[in-house]
Amino acid sequence: MSTIAAIATPPGIGGIALLRLSGPEAHTIASQHLRLTPCPGPHPSASYALFRNGNTVLDEVVVTCYRAPHSYTGEDMVEISCHGSLYVQQAILQSLIDSGARLAEPGEYTRRAFLNGKLNLSQAEAVADLIDSTNAGSHQLAISQLRGGYAQQLSQLRDQFVQLASLLELELDFSQEDVEFASRSQLLQLLDTVEGIAQQLLESFSLGNAIKNGVPVAIVGRPNVGKSTLLNALVGEERAIVSNIAGTTRDTIEDTLTLGGITFRFIDTAGLRHSPDTIESLGIERSYRAIAQAQIVLYLTDTAHLASLQQEIADLKAQVDLTGKRLILLLNKIDADPAFQSQLPSQAVIPLSAKTGTGLDRLRQLLSNPYTAPTTGQPILSNLRHYQALQKMLSATHLVRQGLTHGLPADLVIIDLRDALYHLGTITGQVTSNEILGSIFHRFCIGK
Amino acid sequence: MSTIAAIATPPGIGGIALLRLSGPEAHTIASQHLRLTPCPGPHPSASYALFRNGNTVLDEVVVTCYRAPHSYTGEDMVEISCHGSLYVQQAILQSLIDSGARLAEPGEYTRRAFLNGKLNLSQAEAVADLIDSTNAGSHQLAISQLRGGYAQQLSQLRDQFVQLASLLELELDFSQEDVEFASRSQLLQLLDTVEGIAQQLLESFSLGNAIKNGVPVAIVGRPNVGKSTLLNALVGEERAIVSNIAGTTRDTIEDTLTLGGITFRFIDTAGLRHSPDTIESLGIERSYRAIAQAQIVLYLTDTAHLASLQQEIADLKAQVDLTGKRLILLLNKIDADPAFQSQLPSQAVIPLSAKTGTGLDRLRQLLSNPYTAPTTGQPILSNLRHYQALQKMLSATHLVRQGLTHGLPADLVIIDLRDALYHLGTITGQVTSNEILGSIFHRFCIGK
Repeated sequence: MSTIAAIATPPGIGGIALLRLSGPEAHTIASQHLRLTPCPGPHPSASYALFRNGNTVLDEVVVTCYRAPHSYTGEDMVEISCHGSLYVQQAILQSLIDSGARLAEPGEYTRRAFLNGKLNLSQAEAVADLIDSTNAGSHQLAISQLRGGYAQQLSQLRDQFVQLASLLELELDFSQEDVEFASRSQLLQLLDTVEGIAQQLLESFSLGNAIKNGVPVAIVGRPNVGKSTLLNALVGEERAIVSNIAGTTRDTIEDTLTLGGITFRFIDTAGLRHSPDTIESLGIERSYRAIAQAQIVLYLTDTAHLASLQQEIADLKAQVDLTGKRLILLLNKIDADPAFQSQLPSQAVIPLSAKTGTGLDRLRQLLSNPYTAPTTGQPILSNLRHYQALQKMLSATHLVRQGLTHGLPADLVIIDLRDALYHLGTITGQVTSNEILGSIFHRFCIGK
Repeated sequence: MSTIAAIATPPGIGGIALLRLSGPEAHTIASQHLRLTPCPGPHPSASYALFRNGNTVLDEVVVTCYRAPHSYTGEDMVEISCHGSLYVQQAILQSLIDSGARLAEPGEYTRRAFLNGKLNLSQAEAVADLIDSTNAGSHQLAISQLRGGYAQQLSQLRDQFVQLASLLELELDFSQEDVEFASRSQLLQLLDTVEGIAQQLLESFSLGNAIKNGVPVAIVGRPNVGKSTLLNALVGEERAIVSNIAGTTRDTIEDTLTLGGITFRFIDTAGLRHSPDTIESLGIERSYRAIAQAQIVLYLTDTAHLASLQQEIADLKAQVDLTGKRLILLLNKIDADPAFQSQLPSQAVIPLSAKTGTGLDRLRQLLSNPYTAPTTGQPILSNLRHYQALQKMLSATHLVRQGLTHGLPADLVIIDLRDALYHLGTITGQVTSNEILGSIFHRFCIGK
């Protein structure tokens, strides 16, 4: 195993920067530059030292030293806290590399932590989520996953399955004798439990995903019905250029609003109409793409165009597939014609005035309602890879259940059971491959 | 004294970020969030902990704890190494502030280190220089100043002066009796020493300043003599847009070249000529400003315009004051007319071809010659504040010397001596004021 080095703090100039050295040679390499035995005792120790490159003093540093396995990676580690000058950071890193360390790849410290059993795979993924977290919701998801989360529970269930699977396999050796070592009822009970948990986790995914990635919302409608005004009114600032000239908004404009811990990413789009103007046509093209990516489509019209609303929606559906998206119909500019509200064609159209703010509270409520947080302590799934693994696991467990109820022989049941165990194992990393690891650690920053 | 908190690592997202807490309440505030006694022993210790805000776990952190006076600031300190997410960094900082810490001002940690006698003022200034250092030269200047440098020597000399000054003051009490407690010859000898050192330091300033701030070089000349081609040839890349249309370069373009540890900042300027074009005139206006800021002016002409060179230089001097600047005359495009070299009007004009590279080595040599580094160990002055203080000290010591040789009474000599001691003391911080401290620590980053 090679010894790796990297700058772990954010790139740039600051008061302090931190470099990390991990691997069998970490203490030796550090000693060469620090002229001190960096790890006198068994516990992590911090000491002041001069970092030298040959006879040149590069910096005055604080060295924190960890002995395997009592470190983040589980290997010998040295952390060097230096002055945050670009030159000093680079010069120290270069010295460590010249002395035999290798530049760490993205996520390599956490990868080693996983390989050395310091974290399971779900926890390792949580480290990247934690670093990416930008609000309280996504942060809490990550920290609960890092501290164990549902992966521990799944891991324990998998261990029980593995035991039953071995008993099933044992039956194969005695296939002539028609014995049952593995209790079918126990297996069915275990299937109930794991499927129940998986189902609950899968149901929490839309919330988890909304917390982690936000909810894209497209604001759509014919030109000049007040889409940009609505965006500004919702996010509370002058984000889009508003004018009463139809076609003012050509680019799609994004802004976010956090409601109840969920970040809604609004996309204001160019008005939908047939246009001979090439630039405007391109804008409309983009509007359709924005709608395709959205989870919620706010379709806006105004009192003057209410009559054609049904036709417009039909036209929209002809252009974009709205399956799986929430379509919310909004009627703007009711301030201009207060009597209009009584003439609303259906309950499904929400009357509002982006200008005066009437109806906006109801709209915000409508947006955030489906994402109410569950009772405390209930795990929330936010990881797409885990979501897919659980779905595959469920398909396999359904086959196992069918096999058991139809009395299929053990050697057939066991194939599906192994399949279920495989997918369950990919979540915690009990089953893994270089491909899975590569795709996970690829998205880490260097130095973590 | 309040307890201060700040993020000390560069702003942004990274694997790890570091927060610093310093002051009498540092350990108490940290304990509230860490549920551990952060400083069990007398020595700095690192320990793993959960950082909580109330019952919410914000992060898994490593806490390094320092007891006064064995810390950077000389106060009780806690360093918290957390995951480098923007949210986590801010949330931990906010928790510390909610618990009674105050957000640190720029440089406040180093200011406290100075006030607590951990660093002298010159060393404190070196911390900021170190963080700003971008190349090996400026870094070595800063690190040698941080490790003591000339300030220690000046401080010791000042102590000797202070002793002699007290003896001189003692004479005032016995002014009736015409005694001499302070040895005049010893005082003169000390003056020799300190003036010698000051003189040497002052002479090293142009080198020190060049190392620290680089040397601005303006490339000047009539349009289309190849100024941009020369810049590209010197820095070795296509930085300026080159064309054979006169007036292509309108903005001033900057690029740097490091020769022998000195960074030369080249400023390619618009060609100098009277122009009816407003935009071009503005460019020429900027050229004059660039020349005014430069330390070296490379005046470029070509073989076709050699005849008018003297007149052009005279015109230039009429427009810009060249006093104190090095003017280097260059003759470009000698590749087009190889026989031309023998017709050079004077040794002062350097023939070259920016196109083929002929003569560029000689030019580089010419540029870097005055900045040869002194023999190792000789201190180099790079701090403008110190430069000014030494100059003022020298004026005062000259007066002391005059007073002594003219046999002036002690009470007059002592005024000038106190003045010299004052200026010497401002370098090391033995004499200081809020104004001096304010201007020094203002340029620090927060968290240092």
